[in-house]
Amino acid sequence: MLGRIWRILIGPVLSTRRARHERLAVLLALPVFASDALSSSAYATEEMKLVLWEAGEQALQYAFPISIAVVTLLAIVIFSYRQTVYAYPQGGGAFIVSRENLGEFWGVLAASALLVGYVLTVAVSIAAGVNAIISAFPELIEERILLCVLFIALMTLINLRGARESGAVFAPPTYGFVATMFVLIGIALWRGTSGEVQVPSYPPYAEATTAFGLLVLLKAFARGCSALTGVEAIADGVAAFKPPESRNAALTLLILGIILSGLVLGITYTSSYYNILPVKNEQGEIVETLISRLARTVLEGTPFAWFYYVVQIATTLILILAANTAYVDFPRLSSILANARYAPRQLANLGDRLVFNNGIILLGVLSALLVIYFRGDTHALIPLYAVGVFLSFTLSQAGMARRFARVRPPRWRISMLISGFGATVTFLVFCTQLIVNLPNGSWITMVSIGLLVFLLFKVHQHYMEVREQLRPQATPLRPVRHKVVVLVPGVHNGVLEALNYARTLAPPDEIEAVHINLDPRPPAIYRRVVKRSRDEEAEIHLVTPSAEKMQKEWQAFVPDIPLRIIDSEHRSLVEPVEEYIDELMAEEELDQITIIIPEFYPRKWWHHLLHNQSAWILRLALMRKPKVVVSTVRYFLER
Amino acid sequence: MLGRIWRILIGPVLSTRRARHERLAVLLALPVFASDALSSSAYATEEMKLVLWEAGEQALQYAFPISIAVVTLLAIVIFSYRQTVYAYPQGGGAFIVSRENLGEFWGVLAASALLVGYVLTVAVSIAAGVNAIISAFPELIEERILLCVLFIALMTLINLRGARESGAVFAPPTYGFVATMFVLIGIALWRGTSGEVQVPSYPPYAEATTAFGLLVLLKAFARGCSALTGVEAIADGVAAFKPPESRNAALTLLILGIILSGLVLGITYTSSYYNILPVKNEQGEIVETLISRLARTVLEGTPFAWFYYVVQIATTLILILAANTAYVDFPRLSSILANARYAPRQLANLGDRLVFNNGIILLGVLSALLVIYFRGDTHALIPLYAVGVFLSFTLSQAGMARRFARVRPPRWRISMLISGFGATVTFLVFCTQLIVNLPNGSWITMVSIGLLVFLLFKVHQHYMEVREQLRPQATPLRPVRHKVVVLVPGVHNGVLEALNYARTLAPPDEIEAVHINLDPRPPAIYRRVVKRSRDEEAEIHLVTPSAEKMQKEWQAFVPDIPLRIIDSEHRSLVEPVEEYIDELMAEEELDQITIIIPEFYPRKWWHHLLHNQSAWILRLALMRKPKVVVSTVRYFLER
Repeated sequence: MLGRIWRILIGPVLSTRRARHERLAVLLALPVFASDALSSSAYATEEMKLVLWEAGEQALQYAFPISIAVVTLLAIVIFSYRQTVYAYPQGGGAFIVSRENLGEFWGVLAASALLVGYVLTVAVSIAAGVNAIISAFPELIEERILLCVLFIALMTLINLRGARESGAVFAPPTYGFVATMFVLIGIALWRGTSGEVQVPSYPPYAEATTAFGLLVLLKAFARGCSALTGVEAIADGVAAFKPPESRNAALTLLILGIILSGLVLGITYTSSYYNILPVKNEQGEIVETLISRLARTVLEGTPFAWFYYVVQIATTLILILAANTAYVDFPRLSSILANARYAPRQLANLGDRLVFNNGIILLGVLSALLVIYFRGDTHALIPLYAVGVFLSFTLSQAGMARRFARVRPPRWRISMLISGFGATVTFLVFCTQLIVNLPNGSWITMVSIGLLVFLLFKVHQHYMEVREQLRPQATPLRPVRHKVVVLVPGVHNGVLEALNYARTLAPPDEIEAVHINLDPRPPAIYRRVVKRSRDEEAEIHLVTPSAEKMQKEWQAFVPDIPLRIIDSEHRSLVEPVEEYIDELMAEEELDQITIIIPEFYPRKWWHHLLHNQSAWILRLALMRKPKVVVSTVRYFLER
Repeated sequence: MLGRIWRILIGPVLSTRRARHERLAVLLALPVFASDALSSSAYATEEMKLVLWEAGEQALQYAFPISIAVVTLLAIVIFSYRQTVYAYPQGGGAFIVSRENLGEFWGVLAASALLVGYVLTVAVSIAAGVNAIISAFPELIEERILLCVLFIALMTLINLRGARESGAVFAPPTYGFVATMFVLIGIALWRGTSGEVQVPSYPPYAEATTAFGLLVLLKAFARGCSALTGVEAIADGVAAFKPPESRNAALTLLILGIILSGLVLGITYTSSYYNILPVKNEQGEIVETLISRLARTVLEGTPFAWFYYVVQIATTLILILAANTAYVDFPRLSSILANARYAPRQLANLGDRLVFNNGIILLGVLSALLVIYFRGDTHALIPLYAVGVFLSFTLSQAGMARRFARVRPPRWRISMLISGFGATVTFLVFCTQLIVNLPNGSWITMVSIGLLVFLLFKVHQHYMEVREQLRPQATPLRPVRHKVVVLVPGVHNGVLEALNYARTLAPPDEIEAVHINLDPRPPAIYRRVVKRSRDEEAEIHLVTPSAEKMQKEWQAFVPDIPLRIIDSEHRSLVEPVEEYIDELMAEEELDQITIIIPEFYPRKWWHHLLHNQSAWILRLALMRKPKVVVSTVRYFLER
């Protein structure tokens, strides 16, 4: 029943032969791999300005200069990654690059940073997408967390069905978002210079809550750097490009850089020009995003007021698409880790729909918990997000620098310099992120990454130990002393069948039949046959007529194998069987013993309730013993 | 851990040899077997008067005449049961007597009535006991249900530890109650005739809510008959008396009859004389019982006011003792039914402490549910209780009448007449109980008994069918075509061990080794080795390098048995194994197949999480196949 509901939700099982991969041209690859990075522009400026705002109006004028710094950093990272896509045409994610060039530990560290990052990608993107919806429909504000969780559940389901990373699906929302934002920026610039729009003053705020200074600028910069999240995706996916893969990937990276820079600069410039800030309510919750506010201000009173809704829809869609990228990458990285014996093997299994089910479910659960804990507050999540991303940037580029020094391809010195510079800069940014955001939770990310590294290594150690112990050793075949013990609950067809089976395994003199007399006390109804003593308390016989009767029946049906009847002192089945086996093994110096448990298998489920589950209990107890193999021989009832 | 807590609560395991039974002299047997019956006097008069009260003051004057009718009925029943104890010296409960003399169906009906009755005994006795406590300590009224459930839990625990039905334990509270009540009645009579106590008028009541008439008298009589509940216990337990068992039991029955009559008549007479009624609060709940009220009225203003607390304590104790009787009888009857294949066999098992654990727990749960549902209201429970009791009286005595007609012992005509008269009278009372209390829930009891009869027969039918199918048939031994299939997840020590085991079961040419290639698609990290097609979508090879590598390793370690590698199309392990087994069985016309699943067994519990539970899944799937025996061969890891 549950299985059927699952099947309807997820779709029919797919054959492995249907695992294909699209090869993407640049124009289709851009939406697939860049949606995550482009979507960052939807919150980067807002994050930056929220920090500056706290330090007063004068601080806000630094927004545009900071955005120029962010774009410069973006250029450095992109130039560095262009080298990666050439060096790793099969895909050079941070895990692979760090592991190959810096060593096992740094690879695992990068992988941990990425995994934590993917969980945060989903949380941040979905929360920001929900923010965009709430900006347009403020009455939904009470349902913020519910909306977030619903979207995550929906994404999980879609990905369990197996969403194709297809260019055709990704292109419309991605290009739609880029075009919409540029149109918005264009209108803003045009109406601004024409003096048509009255520039509103900044919303009123009580007083600067923080002193203005270098720390505020660094904090704002750190927040603005969230624009760079997702840039690494292209280097990961080089193999999916049409040949020549590396050149196409590098070109895509460049285009991404240009578009993203344009978006960040454009949004920051126009929003500063119009004195736009996100709107908070009394509880300090953001009720309207900066982009929504910008679009409203620019479009209000024009015939294009409807375009506001286009902006909001496009923003929501690209943010959800960005979350989807994590849904593809998290399970894939988990499965790579599982194949490298760092993660539990369950994460390596392709599910019914050719996707890594367990990884998808894990990601959904973790990001939902995160969103619930942080009440869907993007501003609270960003400090956790960016620090991990810059850690993986640093490791990836340090790895590339090391590689150039090691492999020494043509012009390696200049390449090494570029990667080395990139690594240094991103490392500095990582340190900035970590330090300025320590009170805002960047430590949570680092602790999580540290724990994850520990866990991955612990798991790896276990798998390596198992491999060591299982390494096949050619041992000379020697004769094995083996006996078969049949546990006999009574004389019936099921037992006779089990004995026949035992006879196929061994000659009759290697077969033992044992009956455990569980209730040597005769039942109350027969109590009158018990000899009466004159004592105040009468002992009751331990040899029951039923045991004698059983011996007789046994001799009639199984003359060739003697039956041994053992009284169970405490009415337990397991104890005397274990004792008997231990004794037998010691006495006859056996190497191997097969315990056969006859069991009849009822036809209807409720019939199971009417029988003692002795076979099951015995199996559980006996299978912990070395040299013992437990076999259940089933007799299938027909009625 | 849970096991250890259980052990502390329940006590250490007892050896079967310690099952003993006390033989009781009359003076010790009376408390053991009569406590249930005697305790009924604590509520019978109250129940009767509550009905009469509704019909106004004039109705209340019929209380004493009705109590005379109840005592007459008691005399009839006791005379009838005296014949039973002579005829069944080994114990003649309603189940045994009806089954032996009236047939299977009537026996099962009597057993069902008794089982339902035991549940109600616990519920009514505990509820009445809690009433006695509340009468003395009115502030506990809010905790009525909690107190009931706590007492039931305590009784269950005590009985799981194995309470002895020992005369020494039962004598003080039983004789204490009888003595206390007679002293109370004596003081009441003495103070009444000496005119010392002002006779209070009946508590004010609004108006008669029911018209006075025959129906009210019948209802009051039906309620008063609850005094007879528990009388059958002596006939059940004849075997526990000192010899001559029957004579001693008959004597005990007579003494019980005299004491119980005295209590019922005495309480009814004195409470009528002093115009005593139980006290209700505004919600119609009884906050003080009739006996408590009587004791207060009689003792107030005398130097014996403390005696009131003696009365309440004695009443509470005897009622709890009465519940204990059900805790002994319910599991015992269940186990008799289980041994006769009417109830699930789990109810026949003696537990660690030589008591029928499952029956005790079942009784505790059911009576607790009943008490919770009826909010501990004795007045609501009594109509359910009495109807079942009179059904078993009727069946028991009808069985005796039938027995005398069949066996024809000396003076059988007169005996048959007595039993027949008893059966007729109790049957009429049963009909009265059923009809007048239909709106008060007597139908619930009848429906429960009916359902239980159906269930018991259904269970019996199943056991009989199983017995039929398992009846041993001597079949000639014929040569069996048998093969051993070893499922090979890889080439490692665990698999080599499993192969060694397979070799002890069969010669190498009867052993097959099969590997299921679960993921013929190479992992993403190796994707670069895949041949590239110029098509938009590149198919990926199905033969992987790892399968080839495995064949090579296999040939190095297991030269004598060929390895077959099967690609799994849907990445499922179970499907291809099942298909392979079906084909093998069909092709080679096998009679029996042994599947060996190698499994390594990690040393720490959390290591289990790191391995696919394939062995377990395979076992579950394959064990549904006939002719297939699944054996797990474990390789124990040391690290």
